Amino acid sequence: MCFHRSKVNSEICCSINTEIINTGTELMLGFVTNTNHRWLCRHLADLGFTVGRQVAVPDTAASIAAAVREALGRAELIICTGGLGPTSDDLTRECIAELLGKRLHEDPQVLADVQQFFKVRGRTAPDRTRVQAMVPHGAIVLKNRNGTAPGLALETPPGLGGPSAGPGLLIMLPGPPRELEPMFLNEVVPLLRSRFPPQSPCICRTLKSTGIGESVVEERIASRLRGLVAEGLEIGYCARVGEVDVRLVARGSRAETLVPEAERIVREELADQIFGSDSDELHEVIVRALAARGQSVAVAESCTGGFIANRLTNVPGASAVFAGGFVTYSNASKQSCLGVKEETLALHGAVSAPTAREMAEGAMARLNTTYALAATGIAGPAGGSPEKPVGTVFIALAGGGPTAVLHRVNQCDRETFKFVTSQQALELLRRRLRA
Amino acid sequence: MCFHRSKVNSEICCSINTEIINTGTELMLGFVTNTNHRWLCRHLADLGFTVGRQVAVPDTAASIAAAVREALGRAELIICTGGLGPTSDDLTRECIAELLGKRLHEDPQVLADVQQFFKVRGRTAPDRTRVQAMVPHGAIVLKNRNGTAPGLALETPPGLGGPSAGPGLLIMLPGPPRELEPMFLNEVVPLLRSRFPPQSPCICRTLKSTGIGESVVEERIASRLRGLVAEGLEIGYCARVGEVDVRLVARGSRAETLVPEAERIVREELADQIFGSDSDELHEVIVRALAARGQSVAVAESCTGGFIANRLTNVPGASAVFAGGFVTYSNASKQSCLGVKEETLALHGAVSAPTAREMAEGAMARLNTTYALAATGIAGPAGGSPEKPVGTVFIALAGGGPTAVLHRVNQCDRETFKFVTSQQALELLRRRLRA
Repeated sequence: MCFHRSKVNSEICCSINTEIINTGTELMLGFVTNTNHRWLCRHLADLGFTVGRQVAVPDTAASIAAAVREALGRAELIICTGGLGPTSDDLTRECIAELLGKRLHEDPQVLADVQQFFKVRGRTAPDRTRVQAMVPHGAIVLKNRNGTAPGLALETPPGLGGPSAGPGLLIMLPGPPRELEPMFLNEVVPLLRSRFPPQSPCICRTLKSTGIGESVVEERIASRLRGLVAEGLEIGYCARVGEVDVRLVARGSRAETLVPEAERIVREELADQIFGSDSDELHEVIVRALAARGQSVAVAESCTGGFIANRLTNVPGASAVFAGGFVTYSNASKQSCLGVKEETLALHGAVSAPTAREMAEGAMARLNTTYALAATGIAGPAGGSPEKPVGTVFIALAGGGPTAVLHRVNQCDRETFKFVTSQQALELLRRRLRA
Repeated sequence: MCFHRSKVNSEICCSINTEIINTGTELMLGFVTNTNHRWLCRHLADLGFTVGRQVAVPDTAASIAAAVREALGRAELIICTGGLGPTSDDLTRECIAELLGKRLHEDPQVLADVQQFFKVRGRTAPDRTRVQAMVPHGAIVLKNRNGTAPGLALETPPGLGGPSAGPGLLIMLPGPPRELEPMFLNEVVPLLRSRFPPQSPCICRTLKSTGIGESVVEERIASRLRGLVAEGLEIGYCARVGEVDVRLVARGSRAETLVPEAERIVREELADQIFGSDSDELHEVIVRALAARGQSVAVAESCTGGFIANRLTNVPGASAVFAGGFVTYSNASKQSCLGVKEETLALHGAVSAPTAREMAEGAMARLNTTYALAATGIAGPAGGSPEKPVGTVFIALAGGGPTAVLHRVNQCDRETFKFVTSQQALELLRRRLRA
């Protein structure tokens, strides 16, 4: 659930116009993925702030100043990330202070914190790190528990960026996620709660489906939701690899009726194809379902190379249901670790239904679990043949009934192949858990 | 190496002002990570286009129109992603056609392609998909081999967006990466090459280090590079979890001398701490080094849950050097799969140096490899104790010498913990391979 204050130009944006600016030349050269964008949007949405625009610019004074100046003309809450570090391309602090006409001074407490950070690690603070103790006049300092650069929050005067901008808050956070995330949770959240108290409700609900296309999803549900849309319900669709999300949003006094009613209709129409809601991920759903039943799973992975085990073990508490797994890339390891028979490999090949079956059954027996999943296939780019093209995969599920084997052809790049295959394997298990 | 035409206001931006606009309410709500941004920036940089700004906006006509209008005022090349699908929140095509004053018509070839896409999958095209055959007047259609929505490229007239904007190109691509990526490579790259032929050179080189902090890196190299900076060399630093990148950029006729000279100095100063360059990743470096030596590795993972195996198997051709791995979450599986002794577990616990050592040695013996890596620790959030806090991990390397064991405390969230631990494990192996 999220909160907003009044309706503005964007249908989805909350009334506190909120924008994110990510600085970093490495973002513009494609060296790193901007994970801060998603993380901040997700946490801001939980607090009732929907981000109306996100901008990324390189680490140059002109680019940063232009992006901040434009945002000041539209938004009351601006969050900037990056450029607070100790090196010469860290310009955000100076650049924003200049734009807002704030003088910088060295803050003795911040300087002491920076020096302490190095001291507890048995190192002396390099000279360059001293710049991180510079604080613009009037700024609130946001403590960094995981690095040296503190965050900064500045009040922005009304009308500074343009006629439509009210007074607001500009927050600067360090770029590294392990510094930004705890700082946001510990320092920024209380600040936002007191500076922008919530008013009328806005309810968002996302239902997540798998095994069905985006246009089929819309065909099934759109006509039945038409009445609710006329009353103010907003529907969004998001097609991802192996998933389609349906997002239901409503605001104001009717929100608490409209969204649950829409959810009921979507669940009725899509039934078993919905595996979860909001930020649920399929591997979390599986771990929860197994934990609730007191059951366990093992994996035997060839082409997915540990990706299924990795997904399952990303869930805190996975150890209660996940006994372990085998990554058996070579034929020899399929035999020695899982007991796949030599004649099965010789007769059908490593990429075959019988091999997948023996891998799953072998993993289940060796780790003594309720279920086991196995995948064997050709991730590519090399290794395909006319009969078994790149993308061919056999997925087996042992336990809780006769061993089931799926045959799929997932033609995509290597990492997407692993994801899609893991999704098909987990979905196979989810359906057996529901049966 | 990349190419540009002349120097513009941003020091890093190439002379074809290039911007990316990503549309999608799901991006603004934090439901998905914007991977298209990084992917496009990376591939555009390879072609000599450095992106000067990236903007993400929700799927509303007003937000999309505002972002496109502003970009037209600054950029000659604009790439928009998302909003070309068949559902009612897919507005990009209509919105941009209206902004540019282009009428839409139904293209019979595109319609046939859309219908064919469903036909080969044994389905009939839902009515809504017909909208994807609508093409703005004068647009170049970009074939979609992995989905139904074609991409579109439109010439933009000079001065449309603002006084400084020359004539240019606006390209619309579908949002799903598995549709966008092949379309970019097959359809957009040739279009960009013919529309914006390269002129004077711009050379970029990134050197990647590990095990050393960002400010220490700068202290070691900055003074020795001062002379080259005066001649036009640009230096950038990017600190990531477990890595610091040093980026060296130069343009014009001196570029081909300045960058290699700077690289020589950085390599001299940071020596063994540099593990690779440009888009190298540590796991790729390891797979390449093992392949060159004809050696192999196995893994035994507890707390990293398959993440190390997953990283290694992301490298095409990993099967030549990676025999397999064990994900041994439970004590029982550490004993049965790896031969860890019961008394070792009883005496020292599962998270201990002796257990890590026996895991590595067990994996190496069972899979008959040159080396084996093992990790056992407490990923958290639960499971810590005063003597072994959350984040405690023991990493072992067997093979090629006496078994080495590292003890680290990586206090971070679960997924970062896995990454940092995998980085430390791979680095341990890399140093042994260089020795």
